[in-house]
Amino acid sequence: MRRSLVDVVGEEHVLTDSRTAGYSVDWTGRYRGLTPAVVRPRDTAQVAAVLALCATAAMPVVPQGGNTGLVGGGVPRSGELVLSLERLDRLGPVDRDATQVTAEAGVTLQRLADAHPDLDFGVAIASRHSATVGGAIATNAGGLRVLRYGPMRAQIRGIETVLSDGTVLSHLSGLVKDNTGYDYPSLLAGSEGTLAVVTKARLRLVPRPRDPVVALLGLPGLADLHSLAVRAVREIPGLVSAEFFTSTGLDVLLRHTDLTPPLSVPTDAYLLLEVSDAGAMEALAELAGDLPAAVASGAAERARLWAYRERHPEAAGFLAPPLKLDVSVPAARWVELATRIGDVVAAVDTGARVITFGHVADGNVHVNIAPGAEADGRHQDAVFGFVADLGGSISAEHGIGALKAAWLPLSRTAAERALFARIRAAFDPAGILNPSVLPR
Amino acid sequence: MRRSLVDVVGEEHVLTDSRTAGYSVDWTGRYRGLTPAVVRPRDTAQVAAVLALCATAAMPVVPQGGNTGLVGGGVPRSGELVLSLERLDRLGPVDRDATQVTAEAGVTLQRLADAHPDLDFGVAIASRHSATVGGAIATNAGGLRVLRYGPMRAQIRGIETVLSDGTVLSHLSGLVKDNTGYDYPSLLAGSEGTLAVVTKARLRLVPRPRDPVVALLGLPGLADLHSLAVRAVREIPGLVSAEFFTSTGLDVLLRHTDLTPPLSVPTDAYLLLEVSDAGAMEALAELAGDLPAAVASGAAERARLWAYRERHPEAAGFLAPPLKLDVSVPAARWVELATRIGDVVAAVDTGARVITFGHVADGNVHVNIAPGAEADGRHQDAVFGFVADLGGSISAEHGIGALKAAWLPLSRTAAERALFARIRAAFDPAGILNPSVLPR
Repeated sequence: MRRSLVDVVGEEHVLTDSRTAGYSVDWTGRYRGLTPAVVRPRDTAQVAAVLALCATAAMPVVPQGGNTGLVGGGVPRSGELVLSLERLDRLGPVDRDATQVTAEAGVTLQRLADAHPDLDFGVAIASRHSATVGGAIATNAGGLRVLRYGPMRAQIRGIETVLSDGTVLSHLSGLVKDNTGYDYPSLLAGSEGTLAVVTKARLRLVPRPRDPVVALLGLPGLADLHSLAVRAVREIPGLVSAEFFTSTGLDVLLRHTDLTPPLSVPTDAYLLLEVSDAGAMEALAELAGDLPAAVASGAAERARLWAYRERHPEAAGFLAPPLKLDVSVPAARWVELATRIGDVVAAVDTGARVITFGHVADGNVHVNIAPGAEADGRHQDAVFGFVADLGGSISAEHGIGALKAAWLPLSRTAAERALFARIRAAFDPAGILNPSVLPR
Repeated sequence: MRRSLVDVVGEEHVLTDSRTAGYSVDWTGRYRGLTPAVVRPRDTAQVAAVLALCATAAMPVVPQGGNTGLVGGGVPRSGELVLSLERLDRLGPVDRDATQVTAEAGVTLQRLADAHPDLDFGVAIASRHSATVGGAIATNAGGLRVLRYGPMRAQIRGIETVLSDGTVLSHLSGLVKDNTGYDYPSLLAGSEGTLAVVTKARLRLVPRPRDPVVALLGLPGLADLHSLAVRAVREIPGLVSAEFFTSTGLDVLLRHTDLTPPLSVPTDAYLLLEVSDAGAMEALAELAGDLPAAVASGAAERARLWAYRERHPEAAGFLAPPLKLDVSVPAARWVELATRIGDVVAAVDTGARVITFGHVADGNVHVNIAPGAEADGRHQDAVFGFVADLGGSISAEHGIGALKAAWLPLSRTAAERALFARIRAAFDPAGILNPSVLPR
């Protein structure tokens, strides 16, 4: 089989030596495995040929993009071959009238954001300098602007994908409206590499706001914060982001980084709002009232305020090797989640430190835990069980992967999981695509 | 079987007499058939029981909502049983914080729009007083505001659905972010009743604009109109709608209705823009420049301007029993489509009158034809072939149904159609759901 793979992609792109190591461990370092080979095709035809060979040999395959996933879904865990899409990195010309661009799977999200001075890419995630189009589609990446632009699924205007038998499906002309049968690109978004390999996507770009404004508001607690965020969504049409963090995470950052206190008065809860243009300033000021606040309109000042939120993923890591959970609940249960989650974790691990932050308007809370006791699943049991009782999801953004596989039944019924397995077989009858994740 | 159905829904809701007639013909009158029975369940459990009976008896079923479809996809064409969802008409309380509501399949879109004074439903289509949630999901309805809020697919925050074997899948808690396996609700949107029967949906509502403004601009031609629409999308963040029609349709309406000329000077092409608040007026005025224009901010005046666009679907009917086609193309090909479509139809039917109108920013043109010669498929051959050559879709909004089944290969490859059939079998192994539409 090695010989056949070399015939397709060339000797130097079938890695079987120590260079496979970086492809075999996820960036958290928690998930690692062995792979017989890392194969790096250059184009769609090569992807199709590699998959056809694997299907014939019944060789399981893990597709891999920027390898920035957080749930162990993109690395070989049971001896899978790694199909790296990194060399599919061509970015087409921006179609300014359509506000669209065609990108190969290995293009990073940051390159999309930089593709045109007047246009931006709607999805912004912390890992955007490494995360790629293919991986972001496979995980339906969300991030800081879902409120305004939706997740990765909502950016797809066309897709080219390869089924596990090597069949290429190409539908890339960039139609905004197209009701001609099943919208399988929507299904590929979030399918964690189990249905097909994305090789190209036609993606929506969005007008770049001319005068965005960022405000950081201090609030006495999370209930007040949630009320204000809900009002902001309703009353500020130009709202792009509504993010939160608390004094717990901020205090850690102030101790361990060069950040200085953002407001003159410390408060318990912090709400960061970004609006797309200065025209929304009035509504913003009315909303903020007498709250302690910092407002920024220049790029450097905006970045300075954003840093308080964007550096929160680092915080728990200053205390212990962190456990990064990512959940969402209905709006009506958000305050309960955000205020009680610390106690829920303390009940199973009194020494744990819990840092929460995230996307308040989406019901999404990142629960980062610096465990005091061994991370043997008890933290997940506690957090996911609590979230399920609130009608929530055990994965808002990150996916199920390896980290959450055992808890999927908390979010999906047996009937849903059985349907998932049938859908999967419809796309991948050979059963070779990312067999370690999602039901089969 | 009749006895068993009566046991489930009651004698008065298994129709087998002349009352089946209204359910057996679509509202265009073009598609009709015979049905052994119309069954009208009252709740999800009854839907499940009816489907289980049909699966056992291998009885094909057509799910039917408001029966406002335009492609013959919701009526029995080969002796199917009609499963009417009209009695599932309960609308839950509006969750104002989440800006969501749960609606049963038979609730009309207008009831969603009227559910709360501060909130609106994002999808507005001409048939909104009759069209229902279930049908609008099954067809992924688009309409007048896709530009701003997306189609029906983008409104779904949860769904309850019944598979053909009677299995109920319920996922209704209203999560904005939920990456826990395959997003099958996205796939149900646009599936034309072939995958599952939607019984309830949790739907996004949107803030109702406080001071919307409508402007009708007159332009010398469709190329200028398209340029201006593209600029509007880029430069007016509060843009909700960008619609167009031409003097051809307007002249027919002025002759056959009580409408009077909208502008002091007649022009060839008309662009209707709606912006969500008066704050966008300045950008609108800059855009309009010296063009002939009418601007409306009061509700009655807005409705008066909208009427010119909203009455266009009637226009071709004043000339002959119309053929209503609905296509979309990439932005770069829109002008070519809009300016050449008349000649394309004339080439196969010199006596035809062609009226175009629609959603310019979505690439979507409604091509309404008052044929001069027999409607034997030649008009579709010409229009759909032309659209396919432009990289377009033979169905932007209406779906494939019966009307376009023969031309689906123009928009979807054999490999895609084969995938459709496999997806379909994964949802409906018994093969009883709406067998006359989409590939099996």
